[in-house]
Amino acid sequence: MARCVIVCAGPGQGERPALEPDDFIIACDGGLHTAKALGLIPHLIVGDFDSYTGPLPEGIAVVRLKAEKDDTDSMAAIKIGLERGFTDFFLLNALGGRLDHTLGNLQGLIYLAERGAAGVATGCGDRAALLHAGRMELTGWPGRYVSALAVGGPARGVSTEGLYYPLCDATLEVSFPLGVSNRFVGDTAAFSVVEGCLLIVLPAQETPR
Amino acid sequence: MARCVIVCAGPGQGERPALEPDDFIIACDGGLHTAKALGLIPHLIVGDFDSYTGPLPEGIAVVRLKAEKDDTDSMAAIKIGLERGFTDFFLLNALGGRLDHTLGNLQGLIYLAERGAAGVATGCGDRAALLHAGRMELTGWPGRYVSALAVGGPARGVSTEGLYYPLCDATLEVSFPLGVSNRFVGDTAAFSVVEGCLLIVLPAQETPR
Repeated sequence: MARCVIVCAGPGQGERPALEPDDFIIACDGGLHTAKALGLIPHLIVGDFDSYTGPLPEGIAVVRLKAEKDDTDSMAAIKIGLERGFTDFFLLNALGGRLDHTLGNLQGLIYLAERGAAGVATGCGDRAALLHAGRMELTGWPGRYVSALAVGGPARGVSTEGLYYPLCDATLEVSFPLGVSNRFVGDTAAFSVVEGCLLIVLPAQETPR
Repeated sequence: MARCVIVCAGPGQGERPALEPDDFIIACDGGLHTAKALGLIPHLIVGDFDSYTGPLPEGIAVVRLKAEKDDTDSMAAIKIGLERGFTDFFLLNALGGRLDHTLGNLQGLIYLAERGAAGVATGCGDRAALLHAGRMELTGWPGRYVSALAVGGPARGVSTEGLYYPLCDATLEVSFPLGVSNRFVGDTAAFSVVEGCLLIVLPAQETPR
């Protein structure tokens, strides 16, 4: 199944993701500037166009949102992607700008998880993936920091493999960031959670705090 | 009751808060650099000193943490503040750096709320306050964007006053950022929540997305 790539309007140009030929690309409002800068040609443009300035490119479908709406532009794009049957989402430039938008986009990952879809969000060097009652393996980040945080409620039955500080059938609470600043021992690590949502963050900076 | 000001190790110098003479200032590890830059003299220094470099100032009490610990430096400082009886916390330079630390510090606000303490976190221009089953009034931000997000679980019975998009006895879910990009109508707005935690964010940038 193809992947839905949503280019959000976060700061900076972002990191050009490795694209597959069948990725479906949605540019969200000001994210169209980012798409252009990264040389990505969106298949669909979504927004109320309060952050994109300039003429819209010709020949690309546009979904115009009302400025006064319940959905953020990113959430509108997520819903469109789900309606089109995508179950794998990549949100580009979705983190590290306005805190409320970063948190809103992370809530979008929970929205996806509740509907059986997988989501990854990136931005400003951070990368976050949501794991909902299942197992996730990450490869290719030897020695790197990685954090796991309960979001939306407690995450129960959390276990890890390949991390410096292992967790075994632990409960992570939303009020206690126990899983921050863990580290890959080797090339591969795995997280599993029995109940609840675990946000797995590969942070931008290498400086611990 | 005096306030506990925790200077975290987030990026940038941060904004010097309006200080009261009886504020108790804790510098967390690399936050000591920030405290110095802002001309703040901490009463206590806490950390495993992986992000602070240089000699520690003389005559200031130090709590040395082990590098391998469950608490982040910020959470250790929060616990020390609670042990000393503070019920009002201000986390400076706590947002906008590594995503996992930003989220960890926001979870620290939930930790405080669960113990009956009030907390505000700032960093990179963003400002976030946690409201736990109660009412909060904000004054002095006319026309400014403000967002309210459920954190840790649903927020029920959410009502607002003085906002462009009013909410009345609404339920906010952690998987749907309904309360993002609201706006002050006048100088004062109020939020109330009957059950659960509401994170109220005054975002840094004025560009909507």
